[in-house]
Amino acid sequence: MKYVYMFSEGNANMRELLGGKGANLAEMTNLGLPVPFGFTVTTEACTRYYDDGKMIAKEIIDEIFDSLKKLEKKAGKQFGNPQNPLLVSVRSGARASMPGMMDTILNLGLNDETVEGMAKLTNNERFAYDSYRRFIQMFSDVVMEIEKKKFDEILDSTKKRYNCEKDTDLTADNLKEIVKQYKELFKKEKGFDFPQEPKEQLLEAVKAVFRSWDNPRAIIYRRENDIPYSWGTAVNVQEMVFGNMGDDSGTGVAFSRNPSTGEKKIYGEFLMNAQGEDVVAGIRTPQHISQLEQTQPEVYKQFLEICEKLERHYRDMQDMEFTIERGKLYILQTRNGKRTASAALKIACDLMDEGMLSPEEALLKIEPRTLDTLLHNCFDPKALANAKPIAQGLAASPGAASGKVYFSAEDAHEAAARGEKVILARLETSPEDIEGMIASEGILTARGGMTSHAAVVARGMGKCCVAGCSQVRIDDEKKTITLVTGEVFHEGDWISLDGSTGKVYEGALPTIPPILSDEFHRIMKLADQFRTLKVRTNADSPRDSKVAIEFGAEGIGLCRTEHMFFEEDRIPAVREMIVSKTEENRRKALAELLPMQRSDFEGIYKVMGEFPVTIRLLDPPLHEFLPSEDDDIEALAKTMGITFEELKETVESLHEFNPMMGHRGCRLGVTYPEIVEMQTRAIIEAAINVYKETGKTVTPEIMVPLVCEAKELEYIKNVIDETAKKVMQEKNTEINYLVGTMIEIPRACLTADDIAKKAEFFSFGTNDLSQMTFGFSRDDATKFLGEYYAKKIFESDPFARLDQTGVGKLMKLAVELGKQTRPNIKLGICGEHGGDPSSIEFCHKIGLNYVSCSPYRVPIARLAAAQSAIRNKK
Amino acid sequence: MKYVYMFSEGNANMRELLGGKGANLAEMTNLGLPVPFGFTVTTEACTRYYDDGKMIAKEIIDEIFDSLKKLEKKAGKQFGNPQNPLLVSVRSGARASMPGMMDTILNLGLNDETVEGMAKLTNNERFAYDSYRRFIQMFSDVVMEIEKKKFDEILDSTKKRYNCEKDTDLTADNLKEIVKQYKELFKKEKGFDFPQEPKEQLLEAVKAVFRSWDNPRAIIYRRENDIPYSWGTAVNVQEMVFGNMGDDSGTGVAFSRNPSTGEKKIYGEFLMNAQGEDVVAGIRTPQHISQLEQTQPEVYKQFLEICEKLERHYRDMQDMEFTIERGKLYILQTRNGKRTASAALKIACDLMDEGMLSPEEALLKIEPRTLDTLLHNCFDPKALANAKPIAQGLAASPGAASGKVYFSAEDAHEAAARGEKVILARLETSPEDIEGMIASEGILTARGGMTSHAAVVARGMGKCCVAGCSQVRIDDEKKTITLVTGEVFHEGDWISLDGSTGKVYEGALPTIPPILSDEFHRIMKLADQFRTLKVRTNADSPRDSKVAIEFGAEGIGLCRTEHMFFEEDRIPAVREMIVSKTEENRRKALAELLPMQRSDFEGIYKVMGEFPVTIRLLDPPLHEFLPSEDDDIEALAKTMGITFEELKETVESLHEFNPMMGHRGCRLGVTYPEIVEMQTRAIIEAAINVYKETGKTVTPEIMVPLVCEAKELEYIKNVIDETAKKVMQEKNTEINYLVGTMIEIPRACLTADDIAKKAEFFSFGTNDLSQMTFGFSRDDATKFLGEYYAKKIFESDPFARLDQTGVGKLMKLAVELGKQTRPNIKLGICGEHGGDPSSIEFCHKIGLNYVSCSPYRVPIARLAAAQSAIRNKK
Repeated sequence: MKYVYMFSEGNANMRELLGGKGANLAEMTNLGLPVPFGFTVTTEACTRYYDDGKMIAKEIIDEIFDSLKKLEKKAGKQFGNPQNPLLVSVRSGARASMPGMMDTILNLGLNDETVEGMAKLTNNERFAYDSYRRFIQMFSDVVMEIEKKKFDEILDSTKKRYNCEKDTDLTADNLKEIVKQYKELFKKEKGFDFPQEPKEQLLEAVKAVFRSWDNPRAIIYRRENDIPYSWGTAVNVQEMVFGNMGDDSGTGVAFSRNPSTGEKKIYGEFLMNAQGEDVVAGIRTPQHISQLEQTQPEVYKQFLEICEKLERHYRDMQDMEFTIERGKLYILQTRNGKRTASAALKIACDLMDEGMLSPEEALLKIEPRTLDTLLHNCFDPKALANAKPIAQGLAASPGAASGKVYFSAEDAHEAAARGEKVILARLETSPEDIEGMIASEGILTARGGMTSHAAVVARGMGKCCVAGCSQVRIDDEKKTITLVTGEVFHEGDWISLDGSTGKVYEGALPTIPPILSDEFHRIMKLADQFRTLKVRTNADSPRDSKVAIEFGAEGIGLCRTEHMFFEEDRIPAVREMIVSKTEENRRKALAELLPMQRSDFEGIYKVMGEFPVTIRLLDPPLHEFLPSEDDDIEALAKTMGITFEELKETVESLHEFNPMMGHRGCRLGVTYPEIVEMQTRAIIEAAINVYKETGKTVTPEIMVPLVCEAKELEYIKNVIDETAKKVMQEKNTEINYLVGTMIEIPRACLTADDIAKKAEFFSFGTNDLSQMTFGFSRDDATKFLGEYYAKKIFESDPFARLDQTGVGKLMKLAVELGKQTRPNIKLGICGEHGGDPSSIEFCHKIGLNYVSCSPYRVPIARLAAAQSAIRNKK
Repeated sequence: MKYVYMFSEGNANMRELLGGKGANLAEMTNLGLPVPFGFTVTTEACTRYYDDGKMIAKEIIDEIFDSLKKLEKKAGKQFGNPQNPLLVSVRSGARASMPGMMDTILNLGLNDETVEGMAKLTNNERFAYDSYRRFIQMFSDVVMEIEKKKFDEILDSTKKRYNCEKDTDLTADNLKEIVKQYKELFKKEKGFDFPQEPKEQLLEAVKAVFRSWDNPRAIIYRRENDIPYSWGTAVNVQEMVFGNMGDDSGTGVAFSRNPSTGEKKIYGEFLMNAQGEDVVAGIRTPQHISQLEQTQPEVYKQFLEICEKLERHYRDMQDMEFTIERGKLYILQTRNGKRTASAALKIACDLMDEGMLSPEEALLKIEPRTLDTLLHNCFDPKALANAKPIAQGLAASPGAASGKVYFSAEDAHEAAARGEKVILARLETSPEDIEGMIASEGILTARGGMTSHAAVVARGMGKCCVAGCSQVRIDDEKKTITLVTGEVFHEGDWISLDGSTGKVYEGALPTIPPILSDEFHRIMKLADQFRTLKVRTNADSPRDSKVAIEFGAEGIGLCRTEHMFFEEDRIPAVREMIVSKTEENRRKALAELLPMQRSDFEGIYKVMGEFPVTIRLLDPPLHEFLPSEDDDIEALAKTMGITFEELKETVESLHEFNPMMGHRGCRLGVTYPEIVEMQTRAIIEAAINVYKETGKTVTPEIMVPLVCEAKELEYIKNVIDETAKKVMQEKNTEINYLVGTMIEIPRACLTADDIAKKAEFFSFGTNDLSQMTFGFSRDDATKFLGEYYAKKIFESDPFARLDQTGVGKLMKLAVELGKQTRPNIKLGICGEHGGDPSSIEFCHKIGLNYVSCSPYRVPIARLAAAQSAIRNKK
């Protein structure tokens, strides 16, 4: 096992072992670029460090010091030699670039002796002490965890005392004084002297990098970006070059193209007589990279050439760090630059046009997830820059919205009817809130995760939602939001929600609308040429269907019929049906619902044209349609003309201990087949009507939910088939329709061969399937998932990213068994995962025919499907 | 495909095709016994009848009539021929004997003409018309579904009119009058004349038998006895012989041994001048079979010989029907006789001793389930004979109990403390009721199924329980039970529960205690020689453990630590722990619990000696330990010295949408590792203490519940191991312990290879595993399971009988994956299924090491395990 590689030993393909930074430093070294020499401690050393109980093994230490010797030889300097000291930078470098981890320590190797040596050697005492004070501060901060602020205070007070405006105004003596105070501070904080032994400094720095792999910010970042803990980080040790050696020295960062717009023009900034952190720290204002041409024309020219070379070499836009030491240019890092979604689209198109990338490669350059940001309103960045968030929740559904806050669906609805812009704030939402949600600009909830009711419904509507904002207390009765600070917002107060960041703001922030670029359309078209997965949408209304079609949906994968049941003009009939004690009364109430459901379907069919429409039969437990509080029961009983006791009894008889696992889905259809009859009639009649009106052939796909046993499906399918036959005879028109099932219960996967005998299609309902396979409900799981992430039991949210190990195994089994029985069975997914790129790739691999996701995720799914096809081409 | 077999074409091995009755009739025919000739319509014809939409196919009808011709030839009589009419009986006969189905139609073939022919031929007009009136009534009742009562009224009024005491006192003319009235009644009821065409009579009767396979009583019986719907029933058509031809004729039923005690002595009864149904109907009192020796000594001798022959042939106690026609004996049926559990034990032992059965065969003769009845108190049969049940619930936990009814656990507890005998009546029970349940003689609930909390806990305690008695209304507040009749029982009224039948009685019935026979112990010992599965018990207290040991348990497979938490002296500390806002406070409360838990374990270890004890860490969601109603919260807050708001906030923060899928099991241990620490400490300290005190080596098996991901187990195991290490150091004593997991979540099965890396044993928790695999909770499923049985979607209760198709597939996978990683992993089951014979056989087949069940099921499990081993010997 080799744990340390000299830059000359590596290359760009060794990313897994050397990390991104290390691999690129090696690659650039081999390309002959001016890179200070150094070595990389591998990611495997990091893993070993954790396996060994956070210790660096003797053999790794030996390798580090061997490599250090090689570096000393190459540099012609020695670590800790006051006559000719070698200084190094120590930087982390994971396989994927990861903000939140320890980044850099510069000038390592300095101590009370070597600093003097440096001063003599460079004949620049000021430079030497400037470097030393920087090193002490950085080392103390990132390695020893002493608050940076405390050092800044010393720096600032010294500047003040000597009337220095800028850091560069400090003299060597000033800096010496600062160093002295820094070392005193260090001793006070840690109880021992600042380490003078460069080798000890080095090992402590390496350990600090390893430790930072597991700090809370890194954990969160990994979870959000699907980076496994097991990867670990590498450490790069590189000979220092100095941008703070005077006015012919400097440092900067630059992109080979504009990372914000994608424009093909170098973009970046630099500072003369400075070290790396000064550029970022914002104490002195950096200059635009183009101004380097005036200051250092030769260097600028060389830098442009290197940019070009690196871009051609990596075939992507590069993000580079450089230092100029006494007029000589050094490249300290290069990587594929991060960019906005619109820049990503433009750069991919440009690189394709420039012949640098094939279409496949261009498609793979774009992170599908980022497209989301292009589709929604967002706050005007200028306004945002000055706005202070008052709370942080989950970025549950992207977009930006401002409005007056209301605390019940009714109030929201009424306020919207008065023409107000409304934000609906709820502890959590339930299906009863649908109308209020529709009426609102955005939704804020205090409870519930990324797949809570509010989040799912809001995403479906393309409406901005901040969910699970547990920092605030929402009081439905008092109609108040209370912040952690104690500040209280009342009904009618203006607030703004950023659903893309999860931030909540006071007042109304101005928004700007989305404009879809030509590149967006070009990339989407290109994606469609490569993908083999169809992309459908989950939509319950003509409005949503229309949006989805515009985004390129090729059908509806999930139309939830119950959402229609909650609408104000329908819910009375639904409730009549529920309180019915006889089949006859139930049929009467259902007959009232029939024309409404039928017209819903007609509307959707008309929008969808000849695309397939999958309609799921009634799914939720019936108690969701009734109130649960005595007051509300009283009021409703009055409206319905029945006694409180009667209604209360119905409510109680419908009570469930675990509604998720209760009387719902096809179980409703088995007990009340007349509901299935009514819904089938509405589906088939609507299809015939639309056919007669438009001449378009509609082929509805009727989906039976929550099947766990083939005989359930068989029973319901019989009811569907008999009803359909009857309707077609009455209307004297034949149409085609399919009957299939949602696969969302583990047992359905295990018995899929049997179920496929009656099912013409399977649609994986991975929300419920994940809940039941894991044995926890997504609502309740919010209570402990935090702890699970912190303890690394889970690395990602199984409701956002499909659990391929467990749930995926069941899906694979279901696909295999289903195909055994019915080789050409149609296979899709309609759970939330249908819009998640990594889950889409899994669906591609196991051979599904389509994914279905909320309208605003359709573009993401199209691109992700194309990438899956390209990556998995045999 | 052949659908009809003459008796001479079949044999005893053709049971599946011919049904039990048909196969035995064929066998007896071939043995040369005096069996009237006939034929059997196969079970496949029944299946075909249903497949064809309840129609008998032309080809089957043809076969029936062909066979009829053969029968006519053999009998020398013709169907419908007035000169020499053939009469037949038509009887159902499924593979397993099934009460609840149509049984018999006698004298089929009679009509207005053939009755006259019979009269002439036998020179016995009275006999002919007696047969005809019987036929009309039976045919009308079972084939045409006219209420039998209406015919009885005619019979009774005629008897009264002519002053006849017994049916046999009726003259030929009386009987003619009755026949006339019967036919009029028939026409009035059906609108057409009584069918005169014998072939039509025959086909209608065959159809009626087929139909009866699917009547509600048959469905319920099948479900209770694990008989699949797909088996179907056969129909036997047999030439009539007549027991009603005069005083030299008669009919009877007899067992070759006493079915109640097992005594080796013929047992049965007969009636002279009578047909079959008279014996059962109880109008005339039948005579004991031994009296036949006086009346018909030759026939009696012959019958004894046949008994002996059949018993030797079938090597089992026989249940026979016979008819004597004018001094000639005919055998109409034989089958292995049903018997009580104690008779079954004695007969098995005797047949073994008589050399008729090998030990293996003897063991297979006993239905394990029936043993249960031997272990519990039961009502004195004499008292029971006169008692009228007031309601019928589920026979949830066997035994018999009388007591004064109380409606809350507290009231029950207090009454018991006053020395009263108590029955606890609740809508449903919850863990808070434990103490009340312990204090009661029996438990009655209005809601919940066979695996509801009340049922499971009562079975564990060996306490009688009638659950899900939905016929009565239990009002906790008014403290009343209201019957369907409107009758009301109040607190303190005496009622009696029969947990073996589910019946509820008014008043106090006397009970008799169980006495275990020598045969019981002999059979148990024998079973132990053959079984390879170990049998453990689910027990939470020294008392239960002791009972289980007496019944032969070889360890504890599941000790639920939370049951201890609910006890009166502990729950305050538990609640303190829950409301704690800091780890420190939580630890303080846990420290109070430690000595109690430790002494619990010490008690159990002492009883269990060196048998293994599996202790499950805290499992239920914490809100189960807190009240949910405001009043109770108020009261508790006062006791705890905190404000109502504070406690209410805790209760609300613990609220779960789906508690089954909430913050429970190992999820608690992940969030509150200090609970795991305390429990581990109690487990290990107790083991060390008991070892020091008794010298016995205790090896606790610590079981982590609800694991869905290997890393959960890894985390908890670390806490356990570290704590155990610390305790052993403190006590300066090393002991062995295992750490394993309950496999009760689908994902745990799917990732068992990973989980086995840390788990030294798996114990299948098939209650939760079934719930999550099916996607319904057992409490909520009661709402629709009834409909599921009625519609034949389910044939058995998946919580009582393991679903081998779905859940079983997951278990098999888990066993395979677990053994891949750890070939000698210990495998057990501790769900309710561990006491169910068919589930035990499945556990044997997939290679588990042990089953664990409630103490009173241990004997059942021992026998079932032995049978599994015998049946599956390679």
